Order: sequence, then C-alpha cells, then structure tokens
Amino acid sequence: MFFHVQRLINEIVPDEPDPAAANALQEGLGGQFGEMRTMMQYLFQSFNFRGPTAKPFRDLLYGVGTEEIGHVELIATTIARLVDGSPRYQGNPTHLDEPGEGGATPLSVALGGGNIHHWLVGAQGALPVDAQGDPWTGKYVYDSGNLPLNLLYNLMLESTGRLQKCRLYEMTANKTARSTIAYLIVRDQAHENAYAKALERLGVEWNKLLPIPKTNAERFPEVAALLEKGLQSKQYTFNIDQQNEAAKVYNGPSPSKDGTELSTEQAPEGAPMEIAVERPEEFGPGLDSELMELIQQTAEMENATEPGQYGPTGSSAQS
Amino acid sequence: MFFHVQRLINEIVPDEPDPAAANALQEGLGGQFGEMRTMMQYLFQSFNFRGPTAKPFRDLLYGVGTEEIGHVELIATTIARLVDGSPRYQGNPTHLDEPGEGGATPLSVALGGGNIHHWLVGAQGALPVDAQGDPWTGKYVYDSGNLPLNLLYNLMLESTGRLQKCRLYEMTANKTARSTIAYLIVRDQAHENAYAKALERLGVEWNKLLPIPKTNAERFPEVAALLEKGLQSKQYTFNIDQQNEAAKVYNGPSPSKDGTELSTEQAPEGAPMEIAVERPEEFGPGLDSELMELIQQTAEMENATEPGQYGPTGSSAQS
Amino acid sequence: MFFHVQRLINEIVPDEPDPAAANALQEGLGGQFGEMRTMMQYLFQSFNFRGPTAKPFRDLLYGVGTEEIGHVELIATTIARLVDGSPRYQGNPTHLDEPGEGGATPLSVALGGGNIHHWLVGAQGALPVDAQGDPWTGKYVYDSGNLPLNLLYNLMLESTGRLQKCRLYEMTANKTARSTIAYLIVRDQAHENAYAKALERLGVEWNKLLPIPKTNAERFPEVAALLEKGLQSKQYTFNIDQQNEAAKVYNGPSPSKDGTELSTEQAPEGAPMEIAVERPEEFGPGLDSELMELIQQTAEMENATEPGQYGPTGSSAQS
Amino acid sequence: MFFHVQRLINEIVPDEPDPAAANALQEGLGGQFGEMRTMMQYLFQSFNFRGPTAKPFRDLLYGVGTEEIGHVELIATTIARLVDGSPRYQGNPTHLDEPGEGGATPLSVALGGGNIHHWLVGAQGALPVDAQGDPWTGKYVYDSGNLPLNLLYNLMLESTGRLQKCRLYEMTANKTARSTIAYLIVRDQAHENAYAKALERLGVEWNKLLPIPKTNAERFPEVAALLEKGLQSKQYTFNIDQQNEAAKVYNGPSPSKDGTELSTEQAPEGAPMEIAVERPEEFGPGLDSELMELIQQTAEMENATEPGQYGPTGSSAQS
Amino acid sequence: MFFHVQRLINEIVPDEPDPAAANALQEGLGGQFGEMRTMMQYLFQSFNFRGPTAKPFRDLLYGVGTEEIGHVELIATTIARLVDGSPRYQGNPTHLDEPGEGGATPLSVALGGGNIHHWLVGAQGALPVDAQGDPWTGKYVYDSGNLPLNLLYNLMLESTGRLQKCRLYEMTANKTARSTIAYLIVRDQAHENAYAKALERLGVEWNKLLPIPKTNAERFPEVAALLEKGLQSKQYTFNIDQQNEAAKVYNGPSPSKDGTELSTEQAPEGAPMEIAVERPEEFGPGLDSELMELIQQTAEMENATEPGQYGPTGSSAQS
Amino acid sequence: MFFHVQRLINEIVPDEPDPAAANALQEGLGGQFGEMRTMMQYLFQSFNFRGPTAKPFRDLLYGVGTEEIGHVELIATTIARLVDGSPRYQGNPTHLDEPGEGGATPLSVALGGGNIHHWLVGAQGALPVDAQGDPWTGKYVYDSGNLPLNLLYNLMLESTGRLQKCRLYEMTANKTARSTIAYLIVRDQAHENAYAKALERLGVEWNKLLPIPKTNAERFPEVAALLEKGLQSKQYTFNIDQQNEAAKVYNGPSPSKDGTELSTEQAPEGAPMEIAVERPEEFGPGLDSELMELIQQTAEMENATEPGQYGPTGSSAQS
Repeated sequence: MFFHVQRLINEIVPDEPDPAAANALQEGLGGQFGEMRTMMQYLFQSFNFRGPTAKPFRDLLYGVGTEEIGHVELIATTIARLVDGSPRYQGNPTHLDEPGEGGATPLSVALGGGNIHHWLVGAQGALPVDAQGDPWTGKYVYDSGNLPLNLLYNLMLESTGRLQKCRLYEMTANKTARSTIAYLIVRDQAHENAYAKALERLGVEWNKLLPIPKTNAERFPEVAALLEKGLQSKQYTFNIDQQNEAAKVYNGPSPSKDGTELSTEQAPEGAPMEIAVERPEEFGPGLDSELMELIQQTAEMENATEPGQYGPTGSSAQS
Repeated sequence: MFFHVQRLINEIVPDEPDPAAANALQEGLGGQFGEMRTMMQYLFQSFNFRGPTAKPFRDLLYGVGTEEIGHVELIATTIARLVDGSPRYQGNPTHLDEPGEGGATPLSVALGGGNIHHWLVGAQGALPVDAQGDPWTGKYVYDSGNLPLNLLYNLMLESTGRLQKCRLYEMTANKTARSTIAYLIVRDQAHENAYAKALERLGVEWNKLLPIPKTNAERFPEVAALLEKGLQSKQYTFNIDQQNEAAKVYNGPSPSKDGTELSTEQAPEGAPMEIAVERPEEFGPGLDSELMELIQQTAEMENATEPGQYGPTGSSAQS
Repeated sequence: MFFHVQRLINEIVPDEPDPAAANALQEGLGGQFGEMRTMMQYLFQSFNFRGPTAKPFRDLLYGVGTEEIGHVELIATTIARLVDGSPRYQGNPTHLDEPGEGGATPLSVALGGGNIHHWLVGAQGALPVDAQGDPWTGKYVYDSGNLPLNLLYNLMLESTGRLQKCRLYEMTANKTARSTIAYLIVRDQAHENAYAKALERLGVEWNKLLPIPKTNAERFPEVAALLEKGLQSKQYTFNIDQQNEAAKVYNGPSPSKDGTELSTEQAPEGAPMEIAVERPEEFGPGLDSELMELIQQTAEMENATEPGQYGPTGSSAQS
Repeated sequence: MFFHVQRLINEIVPDEPDPAAANALQEGLGGQFGEMRTMMQYLFQSFNFRGPTAKPFRDLLYGVGTEEIGHVELIATTIARLVDGSPRYQGNPTHLDEPGEGGATPLSVALGGGNIHHWLVGAQGALPVDAQGDPWTGKYVYDSGNLPLNLLYNLMLESTGRLQKCRLYEMTANKTARSTIAYLIVRDQAHENAYAKALERLGVEWNKLLPIPKTNAERFPEVAALLEKGLQSKQYTFNIDQQNEAAKVYNGPSPSKDGTELSTEQAPEGAPMEIAVERPEEFGPGLDSELMELIQQTAEMENATEPGQYGPTGSSAQS
Repeated sequence: MFFHVQRLINEIVPDEPDPAAANALQEGLGGQFGEMRTMMQYLFQSFNFRGPTAKPFRDLLYGVGTEEIGHVELIATTIARLVDGSPRYQGNPTHLDEPGEGGATPLSVALGGGNIHHWLVGAQGALPVDAQGDPWTGKYVYDSGNLPLNLLYNLMLESTGRLQKCRLYEMTANKTARSTIAYLIVRDQAHENAYAKALERLGVEWNKLLPIPKTNAERFPEVAALLEKGLQSKQYTFNIDQQNEAAKVYNGPSPSKDGTELSTEQAPEGAPMEIAVERPEEFGPGLDSELMELIQQTAEMENATEPGQYGPTGSSAQS
Repeated sequence: MFFHVQRLINEIVPDEPDPAAANALQEGLGGQFGEMRTMMQYLFQSFNFRGPTAKPFRDLLYGVGTEEIGHVELIATTIARLVDGSPRYQGNPTHLDEPGEGGATPLSVALGGGNIHHWLVGAQGALPVDAQGDPWTGKYVYDSGNLPLNLLYNLMLESTGRLQKCRLYEMTANKTARSTIAYLIVRDQAHENAYAKALERLGVEWNKLLPIPKTNAERFPEVAALLEKGLQSKQYTFNIDQQNEAAKVYNGPSPSKDGTELSTEQAPEGAPMEIAVERPEEFGPGLDSELMELIQQTAEMENATEPGQYGPTGSSAQS
C-alpha cells in the first residue's frame, strides 16, 4: 500500500520555457531506460519476489521502486514546467496566449519541432512517451524470476539511464532541465551502487570497472553539488512501518570505489509543490469563473445549512 | 514523493492455483481499463494539473491515483498467487516441480492455454500485460488538460473497469481471484462516485442513470460483504502530510442514489504481506543455500569485526 | 461522401454459436489481409489518386473500396453471430446466461480458448483485431503513389486474402461461418480479376498463372453456388450519382481464363439486417425496462404536447 | 451495405501548400481522437448493437458513423492538397519538380520537418497516421456493449476531437487547413449534441456544462459562418432506404443550451471532387503517355471491333 | 559481407509433429531473448563499433552475431518441422491433408491452441514472432555505444536466453524440439562465457557467480552429450578471410569455473539441409505439375537451342 | 549456416556528416521496404520453402537473402558514417566534442531535428528503425507458403524499395549517402529482375511494364556508373559449398527489356571495412587508456608466461 506527501523529491530550478529540452527529457520519463520503466520493473520484481530468506534484497527493490514513483513525479513536473507557456517562448510577440481570435495562431510553436502532442493532445504538460514520441510499453519490464540475473539487469539499467542523462545534460543549458537531470544522474549512481553491492554480496568483485560508464559527471556543476552531499551513496527506504530491511544489503564501502560508505535513510526532505496556472489557449482552465460559480451553486444547494468552499467541511479523518 | 507500507490494501483469500483465472485477471492489471492505466492516468492528470483554485479536484486525483498503486500491488500479487505452483495444479501427478531431470516435463502446463509467458518469461508471477498478452502502453493515458472532460473520461473509465471486473467474476469461482475482484468492483464504484460527484459540483444531475452499468453486484456474496461496510462511498487520501483537500469535493449524498453519504479517510488498515516460496523448476530461487553461503562469506570478509545477517547492522535512520 | 442502406451485402446462414470459428474469422476482419485493410487501402489510394486521365482506374478503386466497407459490415456481423450466445454453446447446462447470481460462472466459456476479449472487453461481438488478437494497424495500408505498383500490390493482396479464406473454410464446418467465407472467396476472386485486368490494360499477359493461388474452390459447395451466378466476374460501383467509370477498365474476357466476361453493376440486392437480442450476462442490455421508462419520462417531459416513442415524430426530411 | 457519391461532404478552400499544417492535420485523420477512429468506433457499435427496441439509438450511430467515412475522405483530401506540390512550397526556386537530374535534390523539403513519409513512403498524399507519425490502431475502438457507457464515451470522444481541432485552428492560418478544421469543429459539436441528447433521453440533465470544452469557437470566422447555418444542431442519416430512425432521438432543444432545436436530414449537398495532377518527382504519374499508349493498344487488341477509351463501352447497369 | 553454406549448424532429430512445442519454440526465435534478437543486437554493435584498438572485442561480436544467423536458420527450420504435417498430428483420422473437399475440415487443428497463424497466415512454417504471437521488434536491439555496458547487457541477454531455453526443455519431450533446445542451451553458455571473459579482461572477478542461472543442465541427456564435446567453451569466428581476432579475447580458463579452457575455431561441421515436401491443404505446393510444365515450356521457348531443367545451364561462376 | 568476410559489399564515399540524410536513410535500413525487411523476408521464405523440385527457386531466395545481410551491413555503416561527428557538423564552433565541461552543450545538435535517438540512445550510430523512428517489426515479413504469390510480393517489394531509394536520392546531395543509395537502387533492380524472371518461368509476359517504376535512374550519375558495369543484371549466390542452383532460374534476357542478359556470380569483390574512432561526448570510447591498462593487467595475470596483446596468442584454428 502506498502513500503520498505533497512535496517534490527535489527542487526544480525556474528558468525560461524550453519545449525542445522538454521533449528531450521525455526520454527520461517514458523512454526505454526512463523513470517509468525503472519504477515498474522494480515494483514488479518486488511483487513477484521469491524467497523469504532474501527479504533484504526484496526490500531494496521496494525502496528503489517507491523512490522511482517520486522520480516520475519529479521529471513529469519538470517537463510540464518546460513546456508550460511555450507559446510565449523567448518573448516572441506573435505568440499570444489568447485562443485564436479573429485568425491569430497562438499555438504555431507546435509546428516547430519537438513533440506536437505537447500542445495538441496534452495541454503543455508531460506525456507518457519517449523523446521520439513512442509510448511507454510493458515490454520494457524485465523480471526473470532469477535474483542474480535481475540484479545484473538492474545494474545495467541504472547505468544506461545515467548514460542517457549525461547525454541529456550535454544537450541543453536550461536550468530547469539541468536541475532535474543532475539530480537523477546522482540518484542513478546511488541505485547502480545498490545493485552492484548486492552482486558483491553474491561474490562478484568489480575492481575498478564501476561506475559504468565513467562520465566524470563531477565536471557538471549541478552534479558536483549533489556529490558533495554524498547523495550517490545513500539509499532511501520510503517505508512507513519500519519493516524495510534494505540496510542489511546497502552498507559498507561503495562498489564505485570513491571512498564513501553506503548508508540508508527513510526519505529526503523534499521541496514544496505548486499547481500550474491556467492556459486559456489550450481550452484547459482548471476552473474558470463560470465553473467556480457552478460549484458554489451546487454546493450551496446541496448543503443548505453548511456552506463551505466546495461543500461542507470535509469529513476526512486524516490521522 | 511516495511512501510504502508493507501491507496489502486488502486481504487475498487462499485457494488452489488457477492459471486460467490468473490470465483473465491480467486484464485488470495491464489491460486498457486495468489498474496500471487508472494509476498512470490519474497521476499524470495530477502532475499536469492546472488551476490553484481547483486544488480539491487535483487532490481527489492524487488520492485515487495513489490508491491505484496499491491496487496494482494487490492484483499483481493475486495473479502471482494464482499462477504460483500451477505445475502441480489440482494435484496432477504428472506435474512435478523438479526441473526436468532425466527428461521429465514439469512445465508442460505452460502449453495448455492462458499465457505461456507466465512460465517461460516470468517465473509464475504477474506480467504487465492484458488477458490477451498485449503489453500495457502509454497510449492508454488520457489527459486532455480540460477538467470537465477529464472527469467525464475518468467516470467512464471507472465504469468500464467495473463492468469488466463483473464479467471476470462470472468467469471463475476461484476464491483467491474472487476476493480481489470483489474488492476492486466496490472500489471502482467508489471512484465512479468520486468523478460523478465532481461533475455534480459542475452542474450535472445524473438522476437514476448511475451507476453505469447497473450490475446488481450485491448478488455476488463477496461484493455484498464489502457494500455492507460502505466501501463504495468512502474515499482514501493516502496522504501523509495532511495537505489533501479531496474531502471538499467528496462529500454529500452518493450520486449513485443508494442512500449513503460520501466521506473520506486517510487509508484502510490493510492486510499482511507474504513473500512467496522458491520454485526450482523456474530456476528462480530467491537465495539458494549456495548463494546464502556466498553472502555470508562476503559479509564476513567485509566486516570482519561486525558480523550480521548480510553485513553489519544497517545504518538506516528510519524516523 | 458515403451512404448506407440497412441491408447486408450477402445473407448470413444461421447455425450454432461457435466462438472458435468466430476467432478464426477475425483474421478476415482485422487481419493483415482482411477486409478492414482492403477497405482502407483502396480508399486511401482513391483519396490520394493522381492523374485526371486515369479516372476509370480511380473509380475502380473507389468501387471496390466502397464494397469493402460492406464486407467489413458483413464479416463483423458474422463474427458477432458466432460469438453471440456462446455461453450456452452446444447446450452446456452449466453455461447459463444469468449474471453470476450466488456464485455461478456463466462466462466460464471465455477461459476456454479463442479470444477472451470477445466476452471480457466486448459483449459477444466483433473486435477490430486479427485471429491472434492483434489490433488492426494503419501500417497495413499501402499507397506508393505509383499506379502499376499499386495495382500489383492490390492483386497480391486480394490473392492472399482469398488464400487465407480458403484455409479458413477448411478450419470449420459451421454454416454461419462458411456462408460468409464462401461469399468473400468469390468476391476476392472478382477483385483479383479487377486488378489483373487493369494490369493487362498496361501490357501484362498473365497466360495461365491466374488465379493465384489455384485453390479449386469450386469443390466447396457454397463457393460453387456463387460461381454459378458468375459473381467472380462482376464488379459493383456502389455509386449513386452515376459518375463511376470503372466499367471502362472492368470489361472483356476474365484474366483468370475461366471463359467468363467481366461486367459491372451498381450493387447487389443484399439481405435484411437484424438487431441482436440483449445479453444480460454481459451487463449489455440495449434498453432494459428501467431505461425504457426513463426514455419515456424524459420524452414526455420535453414534449408535453407531442408524445411519441422517444419524443415527437422526428423532423427528418429524408428526400 | 454502403454507397458513394463523387462529392466531398464540404468544400475545401484553395491555398498554398503547407506541409507543416498537413502534418498537424494528420492528428484529425489518423489520431486517437481523429475521424478514422470515430468512424470505426461508431460502425463497430452499430454492427454489434443489441436491443431491437433501441433501434433509434443504433440508427443514430449508423448515421454518424457513415458521416465519418465522408469526414475521413474530406480530411484525407485536405491533407493531400496541403502536401501536394510542397517541393515548390512558397516559390522556393531550388525546389524543382523534376526528378533529381544531374544531382538536383527536388525533394529536400522532406528533410525539413513534419512527416518525411509524406514524400518518401507516400507521394505527397495523406497517410493513416497521427501528427507524430504513429499509425492508427484498432485499440482505439471502444465498444463496451453497454449503451449508456458507449454514449458517455462517444460524448467524451467528440468533445476531445473538437478540443484538438480548436487547437489545430490556432496552429495554422492556412485557408485550406482552416476550411476543413472549421467544418469538423461544427460537426463534432453536432455529434456531441447527439450523444448528449441521447443521454438526456436516459435521464441526465446537463444544465450548463455542455458543450465541453467551451471554446467559444464562434470567434473563428469560418466557424461562425457554419454556426449561422445551424450545422451544429443538424444530424444527417446518410441513409438510402429510409429505414433510419435516428430522428426519434435527435430532436428537441439542443443540450448545449444555445437556443437551437435539433433536427435531422438525409445528407448535405456536398461539393465537387477533383483528381490531383501528376507529380513526376515522386515517380507517381497517374498514367504517363507511355502507359496511355499501352492501354490503348491492349484495348484495341482485345476489342478489335469495338474501340473505346479503355475498351468497349462499359456494360455498367447503373440504375 | 556474408556467405552461406547449405548446411544446418546442428542436426535436427526427427520426431512427430508437435504444434504446441513449435509455438513454445517461437519464443526462442522471435522472442525478446530469442535468436533474432541476439543476431541483430550483436550485428548492430559490430556495425556501430568504436575504437580501432579494441578490434578483438568487435570481432568477438561479429563472430557470435554471424553464428546467430545460423541459429535463426536452425530454430526456424526446427519450428517448421514441428508444425509440418500437424493436421495429421498423432494419426488423427479426421485430419486429412486434402483441401476441404465436400465439406471436410482438414485444418481444424488450427483452432485447437498454439498460434493459428501457423496454418492461416503461414503454411505450417516458422513465423518471426514469439510464443505469444507478438512480432519481433527493433526495440529489442540494445547498443549503448559504451563497450563495458554492452558486454554487461550481452552477458545478461545470453543468460536469460539460456534460462528460457531450460524452461522450454521442461515443457516438451518432443525429440525434434529438444535436440535444438539442447544445442542452443550449450551455445548460449559458450556466449555467456564469451562476454563474461571479455568483462574479466576489463577487471571483473566473477568468483562462483557464473553461470547465471545455475540450471545444472547436465541432467538433460541431450545437453550432457554436447557438454562432453566441450561446446560450451568453444567459440567460432565464421570468418572467411582470416581477419577475425576474437581469439585474443576468448581464451584462458572459463569464467564459469568448470575447469575447461576457452578456444576458438572457424566453424562447426554442420548437418545436411532438406527441403520440405508440398502441403496441398495449405494451397502451398512448391511447384505443382502444372507449374512445372509452365516452367518447362517457357524455358524451352526462351532457349530453343539449349534446353535445360529451367533453362540453359546457369552461367554461375562460383569460384 | 552463415559466414562473414571483413569487407563491405560496396565502397562508401567519404563526405561531411549529415544527420538529416542519415535519418532519411534509416528508411532504407529499418523501414517497411528497407534492407532488414528484404533480408528477413527472403530468409524466412528460404527456411520454410516447400518442394524439392523447386530448389533453384529456393536457392535464388537464399542468394538474395544472404546478399541483403550485407546490404544491412552497408547501409547501417553508411548511416553511422553520416551521424558520426555530427556535433561538429559543418564546422560549427559551438559544437565541441568534449563532454559538457563547465556547462557546454556539445550535443545540442540532437535537438535540431532528425532522430534524437541517434545521439541519446545510440552513440552516433545506426538504429533498427525507419525514418520516422518506428522500430522494425516482424509484421513486415511476408511468407504465404505459395510460390507464385511470394514471387509476386517480392517483385512488388523490390520495386517499392527502389522507388523509395530514388526519392531518397532526390532528398540529399551528400556523397556518402548517394554512393550507397545508388548502389542499392541498382541492386534492387537486379532483384526485381530476379523475381520478374522467376514469374516469366511460370508463364507471365511482362511486355514493357517493367521496371516498375520507370525512374530513368540513369540520369543519376552514380547510378549510371553502376549500370555501365551491368550490376542490374547480375545475381550473386554468396554460396560457399557450390550447392546453389539459382543460375537455373536467373538467366536469359532481362525482363526489364534493356537488352542485357542475366547471369550469376558467387560474390562481388567488396571494399575494406574500417572501425570508427572514439566519441568521448557520447561516453562511448572503445577502450580508453584506463580500460587498455586493465586489459593488459588481467591478461598478464592470467598468462604469466605468455604475454600477448589481450592474452596469449589466440588458439584460433581458422582453416
């Protein structure tokens, strides 16, 4: 059973809209080696796990898998931020936000490259597709039922994800994009360490091979700042009832031989979430004034004696 | 950011293995109207949501979306339970679990129908596919960016999901399958109420049309028991930091006109999780004795002074 | 612009339900060489056609393409007839049509093979998929923009369609299935003649190669009856405004060298259509008594002075 | 059984070629909410329809479904017009139409964005794909077998289609594109009214919620002109044998509360069709002079006594 | 540039037709971890290879990739043998091979499970699909451009392929199937050794982890016989011009620690190929007597002075 | 069983990087009518072939199929050459090859069009996809099991492939691209002749219809040079053991009526292959100095007495 807090797992730095960067980042969300895939792969490996004596290995999978849901939230929100407002991208005066009155073409940016679905199917938000527009597919999920094989695959998966994110870093200088890319590079490194260490527990000695690839990502300033904090050697459990035993696997010297020690925590502090503003040119207002009025009317009608914002005070029993 | 507790959202009743029922249930997991789809659709609608004044609507989406992750966990585990041990299905003596020594064919059950991938690609576990074996695809996710349209779609989605689950109920008498099917029927009804009520807030009067379809599912004993508890009129927030405002929408008389009042809670109590046993005929042991020994050795080598199960006591700082 | 008459292009002979035959027939509907494909391929070739002087060739494509929409209607209806009522298939007393009261499993037939979606996703009706359950895809449509190449492809397409239908004939003895299969075998032959003749117009001499394949389908009694009527050498225009010039191409001796002369007509007479009965076990009634009552009420409310079946007499101005 | 007239359902206004607009319009043809999808969905719902007493509802589906075939023809032709001649797009002198003699690159426009398949796979014509190039798939077709659920889905489908077309309108000022976009916006509105009214018959009261979304499309001049004519409140039967009873549902005040009354007619008048010219740079002539000569020769040889354009006068018996 | 010899890479043992086994084997041909995938993955990694100094690694990929083409040939032929003649499967007297004369249904076996396309689309031959009927897709091919990562992936790929083949072995006792399965198990082991050894060259020490999984396949008699010959520790170059340097990597003690030494050879001896007989019930004769006569006639006409089987003696200059 | 020589089937002319041309060429590699498809289609038709008396027809398929593997190698290498180094494309000084140090974006070219996966998923190499980025699929492979039908399809397939390549020629003036395009145009013509001649053997007289399309490709200088050498009328067997009998079919006057005689040879001479250089900005070095050192160390450790480049002298027994 899963829970949510209304905080992002990492802060998104504000910058100009950048639909080309947004489209590139879709690979990290819905691509073959993106966050939706790691999330689903680790969750399925957790659900189907065999072997009560190997619980710490399963719990490692559950912890990383739960973290990946938060990564999906983070990168989807980042993409939405990068597309949001793109018709006015770089102050272009011909890109008005008003819906096409009298012949205006406020969405002509959609014809200029990237993924036209960002404006046509979605409303300047994230899509469950990769950077070529191909939808995410369940075929990506790997679960052989054999623990060492799954660990080997997961190690390769994290390494490839990090490789692609390092390439993404080189494609754009947008700060919104780079803040999330850098965070995911470092977390992928932490997960690579997790699976590499688990394989060490089964006898492998990696010597100097790890990390694969050797991207020297510390040259990227945003990455360097996170490495300073040791985020590449920390694993969260995201577990509420204190039953997660991943710490029995994720400890000791890092298999990346960077001199750090692996350790676990429950969760990072996170950053506040915001709700995006309305975009009338997409005919996608949250609640326009007319709808707000309707809500008020129906709520009042229904609860003649107990007026509230949308009705009576909620009976929620949040403990 | 998401969290996990090591409890299933509902109890799974034990029964015999039943791979045909398992395959049918795959529709509810990876099908076009299954739990992976509702989960992803509501989460994307939450991530891309527009309109700060409409926060209670977004929070409703977040709450249902987070619940759906738990449903994915529940139905995947149910499928795994139904396939698990199926070579010995109904005591058939020709189905031994030992891996094919001297020519035996312990996995011949795989050729008899259902989804051969349950034994050949997975190891008697759940797959992210539908009952025809088609993989889940991101194309399923709908997010138009228009709130009333999204609510209308979500209402239709829950109704269709419930329709299919009622048909699934009629396909099998296996108790393991039915316990989960019945639970999901009632929860789909609660979600249908959620979206129908949200549309009532926007002015629609459903009269007697809801629920669609009218399946009279109270004739199914497992469903009746859950309706008794009022689970069709309760919505969980699954929210930890008490910021979820869904209760402002989800209240008042049920749009299904069954005489109940809608109300919200944080989460159900849930049921304990178990880890499945090893299946040598799949070459998928969790940790066989050889691997256990390896783990012990490497752990001891690494932590000469601090022996533990898999190494030193975890440094986990779970608060 | 297209029109419809409420008649089937050919009569469907009644027989027992036969879901295995229904599933096999799906190949002829939604398969790579089925009727949806021929329909779409010829319509796209018509829409994109180049060369005003070649109008008779375009009109041939339009005529065959329009016929194929009627074939889609015919084979979809045939499949629906074959699945319809299948839970009571062959008088099996455990297959009741009532929806699962008290634990009965009226849809257990769905687990027995064929395409489970016939019962689970659809309600004992046809699906836009092939006999393996794969959905029809726009990738099937071929339009190179080169007339001789398109004609060559279309000839091959009809030949392959006929080959598969002859194989289908050999798979089932069900009369409902065979009446439609036989009709489509003969019409495919007529279309093969159409494209072969068009290529003769461009210089090819087929000698004895056609038809490909030589299936001697006259051994099949239902086919023989249609060959008697010369249906393999007749092409319909399905054109209302008498502008179709296909007859300028489709004339002269048959390229199949069977001694017949090719000729054109507007349309066959067709056969009456019926609407299927309700199936409560699918929760798919057309209009149950409750809905009928609702309709009556709302119609009366709206048209207080002019009661009718569903409202006032329609204002339809069909000329 | 279906028929054709050689008229387009609406006139296409001429303008310059515009391959970017053509590509965007592909969403309206082969996209998830495009015309191929509505056509197939309503036809399948008609073929599989249950309930003889609900015939007027089925006939409404048949009428709209048949209209959608004409929409597919209209939008495919519009796309073909927009791509046709695009190598000379905007008078660019480096874009000659002659096939690459001596090193020229007459098709270099194909590398500049949009869908390269418009020039490489097709010959400057329409393709059965969406604006991202993804092929249409049978997975789009929804037919639950439950009438209210189907109506709800269809309402949402038309609303989403209209939403996307309003966004398309904002993406391009090309008159060819806009004439078809505007027509489809208004017809989608008519169909939305159809399904909303059908649900009113079943008891729903929409109040002011419809249309969804509220795009105020009357600000678009081409749309305003069609609304003047009341095209948003008229439904065609496209039925030849006068058996269509849709008028029993489609009548009374518009559910969009715009003060109009719903009414039915057989069909619009339509506009003349034209055949596109040859494009040698695509190696796709209709009939070049060499082929014309071949046709003449073979026709004369075959019909020594009865010369005609392509052979003897057709024996077509069009009544 | 590639060459062919008309010999199979290993002998196929004859046995009864077995379409269920044939269908299971399709996973090994067209599945996500089958031979088409390994073939394409290694060839693409060879074509795109970077680094002249790493030529021995590239040549290892070229050698294994070329071997995989022969594996595709072997397993496709094995599947064809297993389906071929299946209508008469197990002497069932109702399954005649004659095409449906007078109502017989010689292909009814096609409705009984497995992949109906084996009889309906193909003519009792192999298909480029997996055991669920899903077509092979280019999405399977992995080439990150990073050598250690590619090697890690390839190791995992071979291990998973072997795991699935061991499961296949347990599903069927058919000797035709098992002879090919056993051969591929051992060759996968040789390839796993290849990539594991290549990673040893880069510093990894596997200790006792390999092979993954530990299937103890020597319990399978057909496998034991091949292990006796040391086939798990031998790699072929399949190279004609003696430029392949894979031997510089593939040497030394086996990383599987079974006491063998790795060594390379050019190619195995192989086994004779046969051409399958005609199957009239599929309308798929190679050359029936009528076609043979046509060939003879045209050959004679063309070469009046030099009669031969199909024309004059070929001018082939095979050196 | 297949073999390889380390030579390309034709020389690739050097020119500047051109990622747009590279992307267009992907259609010829992984497209519906590209080389992967012809390769797989002919190989499957060879594997499944029926009719020992028709061996020369099968051997024709085997010869062309084996040639196509070499075409896949040629066009994949051509694409890799065209993408390789593209960040420095046309001397753009902002495109450095160094990996993003201090904020540089050396891969920004990836956002400018074409296929972003060329830089993000691959490392400036070829991908198994078409020019729209869609992956190759086994659905493309056609094998009806009927010889004349297969020949007709193959003829159409080669004609369409040639049509697309002529269009590709017109899209780019890059010499690297055109050298391979021209070669494939002429070889497609040779294969079109092969299947057309085989159909002549079965009785068809093509008269002046072939080749389809008539592209007059001799106007393209690179094509003219190859036609001079008669490459359009020559077929290779690529057979080592001299068992290929294709020459019995492929002889006599060309069906394209260009005055040439068809003849067969074993193989062309080919051209040398090169290994591409490292690309650090892709984190895809072949073997960087660190890896080279590791290799040396491990090799020395393992073979203390027999040092070699990567170990002892290979024991390869290439005969």
